[in-house]
Amino acid sequence: MEKKILWINPVTTNQFDVTFQSEFEKVKQPDTTVDVVSLTPAPGPLHLEYNSYEVMIMPEILNLVKRAEEEEYDAAVIGCFYDPILRAAREVSKKMVVTAPAESSLHIASTLGESISIIVGRRKWIPEMKENVHKYGFADRLASFKSLDMGVHDFQKNHEETTKRMRLAAREAVEKDGANVIVLGCTIEFGFYRTIQEELGVPVIDASLAPLKYAEFLVEINKKFGWGHSKLDGYQSPPDDEVNAWRLFK
Amino acid sequence: MEKKILWINPVTTNQFDVTFQSEFEKVKQPDTTVDVVSLTPAPGPLHLEYNSYEVMIMPEILNLVKRAEEEEYDAAVIGCFYDPILRAAREVSKKMVVTAPAESSLHIASTLGESISIIVGRRKWIPEMKENVHKYGFADRLASFKSLDMGVHDFQKNHEETTKRMRLAAREAVEKDGANVIVLGCTIEFGFYRTIQEELGVPVIDASLAPLKYAEFLVEINKKFGWGHSKLDGYQSPPDDEVNAWRLFK
Amino acid sequence: MEKKILWINPVTTNQFDVTFQSEFEKVKQPDTTVDVVSLTPAPGPLHLEYNSYEVMIMPEILNLVKRAEEEEYDAAVIGCFYDPILRAAREVSKKMVVTAPAESSLHIASTLGESISIIVGRRKWIPEMKENVHKYGFADRLASFKSLDMGVHDFQKNHEETTKRMRLAAREAVEKDGANVIVLGCTIEFGFYRTIQEELGVPVIDASLAPLKYAEFLVEINKKFGWGHSKLDGYQSPPDDEVNAWRLFK
Amino acid sequence: MEKKILWINPVTTNQFDVTFQSEFEKVKQPDTTVDVVSLTPAPGPLHLEYNSYEVMIMPEILNLVKRAEEEEYDAAVIGCFYDPILRAAREVSKKMVVTAPAESSLHIASTLGESISIIVGRRKWIPEMKENVHKYGFADRLASFKSLDMGVHDFQKNHEETTKRMRLAAREAVEKDGANVIVLGCTIEFGFYRTIQEELGVPVIDASLAPLKYAEFLVEINKKFGWGHSKLDGYQSPPDDEVNAWRLFK
Amino acid sequence: MEKKILWINPVTTNQFDVTFQSEFEKVKQPDTTVDVVSLTPAPGPLHLEYNSYEVMIMPEILNLVKRAEEEEYDAAVIGCFYDPILRAAREVSKKMVVTAPAESSLHIASTLGESISIIVGRRKWIPEMKENVHKYGFADRLASFKSLDMGVHDFQKNHEETTKRMRLAAREAVEKDGANVIVLGCTIEFGFYRTIQEELGVPVIDASLAPLKYAEFLVEINKKFGWGHSKLDGYQSPPDDEVNAWRLFK
Amino acid sequence: MEKKILWINPVTTNQFDVTFQSEFEKVKQPDTTVDVVSLTPAPGPLHLEYNSYEVMIMPEILNLVKRAEEEEYDAAVIGCFYDPILRAAREVSKKMVVTAPAESSLHIASTLGESISIIVGRRKWIPEMKENVHKYGFADRLASFKSLDMGVHDFQKNHEETTKRMRLAAREAVEKDGANVIVLGCTIEFGFYRTIQEELGVPVIDASLAPLKYAEFLVEINKKFGWGHSKLDGYQSPPDDEVNAWRLFK
Repeated sequence: MEKKILWINPVTTNQFDVTFQSEFEKVKQPDTTVDVVSLTPAPGPLHLEYNSYEVMIMPEILNLVKRAEEEEYDAAVIGCFYDPILRAAREVSKKMVVTAPAESSLHIASTLGESISIIVGRRKWIPEMKENVHKYGFADRLASFKSLDMGVHDFQKNHEETTKRMRLAAREAVEKDGANVIVLGCTIEFGFYRTIQEELGVPVIDASLAPLKYAEFLVEINKKFGWGHSKLDGYQSPPDDEVNAWRLFK
Repeated sequence: MEKKILWINPVTTNQFDVTFQSEFEKVKQPDTTVDVVSLTPAPGPLHLEYNSYEVMIMPEILNLVKRAEEEEYDAAVIGCFYDPILRAAREVSKKMVVTAPAESSLHIASTLGESISIIVGRRKWIPEMKENVHKYGFADRLASFKSLDMGVHDFQKNHEETTKRMRLAAREAVEKDGANVIVLGCTIEFGFYRTIQEELGVPVIDASLAPLKYAEFLVEINKKFGWGHSKLDGYQSPPDDEVNAWRLFK
Repeated sequence: MEKKILWINPVTTNQFDVTFQSEFEKVKQPDTTVDVVSLTPAPGPLHLEYNSYEVMIMPEILNLVKRAEEEEYDAAVIGCFYDPILRAAREVSKKMVVTAPAESSLHIASTLGESISIIVGRRKWIPEMKENVHKYGFADRLASFKSLDMGVHDFQKNHEETTKRMRLAAREAVEKDGANVIVLGCTIEFGFYRTIQEELGVPVIDASLAPLKYAEFLVEINKKFGWGHSKLDGYQSPPDDEVNAWRLFK
Repeated sequence: MEKKILWINPVTTNQFDVTFQSEFEKVKQPDTTVDVVSLTPAPGPLHLEYNSYEVMIMPEILNLVKRAEEEEYDAAVIGCFYDPILRAAREVSKKMVVTAPAESSLHIASTLGESISIIVGRRKWIPEMKENVHKYGFADRLASFKSLDMGVHDFQKNHEETTKRMRLAAREAVEKDGANVIVLGCTIEFGFYRTIQEELGVPVIDASLAPLKYAEFLVEINKKFGWGHSKLDGYQSPPDDEVNAWRLFK
Repeated sequence: MEKKILWINPVTTNQFDVTFQSEFEKVKQPDTTVDVVSLTPAPGPLHLEYNSYEVMIMPEILNLVKRAEEEEYDAAVIGCFYDPILRAAREVSKKMVVTAPAESSLHIASTLGESISIIVGRRKWIPEMKENVHKYGFADRLASFKSLDMGVHDFQKNHEETTKRMRLAAREAVEKDGANVIVLGCTIEFGFYRTIQEELGVPVIDASLAPLKYAEFLVEINKKFGWGHSKLDGYQSPPDDEVNAWRLFK
Repeated sequence: MEKKILWINPVTTNQFDVTFQSEFEKVKQPDTTVDVVSLTPAPGPLHLEYNSYEVMIMPEILNLVKRAEEEEYDAAVIGCFYDPILRAAREVSKKMVVTAPAESSLHIASTLGESISIIVGRRKWIPEMKENVHKYGFADRLASFKSLDMGVHDFQKNHEETTKRMRLAAREAVEKDGANVIVLGCTIEFGFYRTIQEELGVPVIDASLAPLKYAEFLVEINKKFGWGHSKLDGYQSPPDDEVNAWRLFK
């Protein structure tokens, strides 16, 4: 089944696009097409550690989602572990499904284990992410958040250092906090899951691979069974006349 | 104590600004200055019933919040019952406090009674608002949401009709759902609280008066005791060098 | 990617096996092999409405799961909406993944909507199923259970009658209870989801299709990323020496 | 707006009355009148660390509340962090509002931050206070209770020692338990909040200042909008005939 | 095993004492001694429907509890479904156990069924009782409260009328609210449980019999195994020197 | 009152039967008869640390429960702290009551204290037990699980070693985790409760004595008041015709 997926890297740099693209090519299903886009490289946020950074580029993400549906993508992934504008994106998507890293990682993690730790860059990130953990229903499964004390752009600078900190954090999560599954709480923590997983012997969920595969899954059940986002209530689409009259989207 | 408050009406019409301004003048403390602003009257959303509408004007709200602090406002109120961008607004506010209708109304309602019903325009609004009720901690006090089956711009069209529906919904909330406090879940439901309150004999919280007074309260404790939003963790401000380099705000 | 899945119909009748098999053939991925088995047709339960019926055939289910792994299945689905012995099945599966109808349906439903009603046969079923809803984390998303007042073997007797009752129950769930996604809470409620879905305009999750596709998804991420059930804590496998000495499994 | 507030110090000693009075004079609004009373200096509890101590003076507190309304106070504050008899006090108050330290501090703290630690004197106090945290809705925001291992009458004995312990406890709360707001869980922990707040850089809520200002806020919205305690259900006033016939109050 | 139990009827009338005494004689264990006391028949509350009534007689209850231990009772039951002063009573009881109607009824009901409705006299009672249901841990098992719209002193006036209303309420609880166990939420609803139980075929817990038997049970495990109330933390006894110096109890 | 209780030791060894029998004889009520049975000593599990072990002997437990009722037992206790097949056992018991170690210990512990730690053998056990703690309603009272790092058959090997580890774990639970009641989370942790209880001064609940006495209590209220398990909904008995036709039980 053909699946056309748009990965939105919601930062104003394309520095990670090639890597994501090549990683996704290796793991996608044969009939899946994945396109990776980032935002207009005008001055703008290079990472989204602050909610105020997210806010400033939310309209551009939403325009990309909107355009994705017009271009007949089957799914869009909003590639930040804060899962920004998931509700708005589902509103504007009449057929297309939309998912994001935290949602997909947590559904997977809670199917694979019973006590989850999330490894983040800074403790600043925790409250917003914890809100999502509660919202998605996984509060009772949350063992802990562990901070590496690193910014988004530090993860890929010195792989040895990152691995060292991640190993320490994950080990503490497992040994002290009672975790039996680890989630890496940032898409830019890519490239580390397998090492940690093999060393610790528990599943370590990568926040970019998880939503890609969850998107393929959602597309499949949407195309086969018509199981897309409910258009009643929270994800109801806005009326075309308002959208047009107010020139809301590009 | 002087309190300078900015009320942000986050829609691209100033049609309600005068009314809000005059209502606020009647109820504010003597030393309080309230300014009411709405968004640039370019084509844009005239209401925010859809989360996708909110998203498109979020950056402008955040710029207004940011500018408010620069202009030495003591508080900003983001005047929509979805409480949009509360976290981002608190991030960019180093001294100024920020609040919003749902937060303030629910803190008040849960102090005055023990079982709260929220009267909304459409059931579309419920999931996003329910998320906030849970996030703020008042899930156990939520008796019900009641929908009037009216849009934001219907409330003020025919006051008799609105009163009729509101009375019916509030009465059902009290008699069937066990509510003992009512919250009107939209700032544009202004002008009705007192009638319903007197008829039903239970507090009916108006979603524009509540945040104005809560803002005054927060300003007072901030100025007197230094009790402003914690700048550790979730409301930590972004670093100036990034904000400047990325030209994030106007 | 080849995926070999065993569907276990945990009743001592093969009367539904052919139907399940043919339905699964239509919707599985091209490289997926699905085998449908039911239990030994000795006298035994023809349905599992009672937990005591489940208990009596649990060892046979577990033996089937155990054998499935030996025969190199990638996944087993335990085809009853009570999700019996999910923990035990995951214990004995060292590589294979295991899922079940309620788990998979609820993960899907909570991704597609925000308020879920589950349509069951009898109110007898509700407490055990509600336990699972809570256990999986979806209590806050549960709008209601609706009972059709029918036994498992009634669903397929008179399709018109079943459709009529299901339509009524689903409509009440949507209109009165605030549901925006429906889950059919029994695998033998197959064949109805599309009609109800089209009539009501909200997703209606079929309890046999959901776990089949979720199993394919889990196999894919297991094979690609090594993301199988955590073998630490709750799903830890029993030691071979005890299993052998005690001749636990066939 | 004139606000007449009665602060009830529910202990049989007036040793703290002068201090409270003078502290309140410094921070109250210009038109506010605050009166501080303590209980009859007959033999009786000098602190309320034990619930059994609270119980023995509850009727006297209630009589004071009752009399406060007769004397046209606008608000009464029951000055103990266990928030004793809040429900009964609201029952007997037909117009007057009533609040207490834990309620007010927690509403403020949860508006200013997202993770709260409460610094108490002894671990004995924790269960009763935790009950209130849950009851008010802030369980999800509770980071920890920290005990100073001091009794109520130790706090003001040696300010240096108290500061030292408080600093240590607050620092642990912030660094280990993830708190970003601190609440001082006893009215007699007065005089320390500013030092700790400035050292740690997070809001530190004082349990006597918080309810005073919250009382002013509640009076203001009560007088302006008629938003007093709901007299339906839990805070319904007892009928006068019973109260009189049974000579319930002085 | 000898068990000496004091039943405290916390009202200033002895009108129900004889009935309780004779009912208890019929159902107690052979070696159990039960004594029924009510409060000083001075003017005072004849029922406790209002929390302010409870407050006024709390010290007398506590003195009775205290004296009960001195007189070597093994258990005290505080005979009101609001379970007043349970914490304080346990503080002052060094060896004796203390229980109350709601606690005991809910432990029993949640062992016998999975969905509980509580039949009260007036909706006024609900918030205080609901607080206890949450506190004891049974919120997830609460199907509903049903009000008979009767005061405490109405239940025994016209047995036919009471039975009629109770039957209707219980039937609605079972048929509409999904209850499978009923709790009668007032000790003065005595004498009806068996009729309703037989008619409806679900357990109907009587709020005076339940705590008596639970008290016997608690005494038995206390005497046999030393399992009394934990004297660490919440039920820690106050120090004798303070109790004596402050002449706290009679 | 005569009480005939069957204690089911759900393992295929009778090695503990004599001890249990003799311990029970010491503590049972005079008119109680307790019989201890274990499973057929064919090859089979000697302990139930794994859920897959439980599953394999569940039918035999259920047959024993079923037979117990036929032999006019008043209660059956399923003697494993995982509380296996409690629902099924209650389904097949029309008059007899059924309880188990975790249920009874937690009801007792939450009546005696407010913060409970459970001492288990291995961390493997925790997720299944935690599920039960949540299911029974005691999640908010759970301080911690502490693991002794011992298997079921280690507890009685070297009493000194077991005592040492148990003391350490219990002390940590009390001092670090805030527990004020301890529950020993395995029936084979018998013989230790009193030592630890006396050393620590908090109640330590033994997982075999607790259900025995709780069973006596349940029998008493069942016989006196007809308060047995609700036969509506979750514990409804299967229809005889199916049970017979399908030859479900021996």
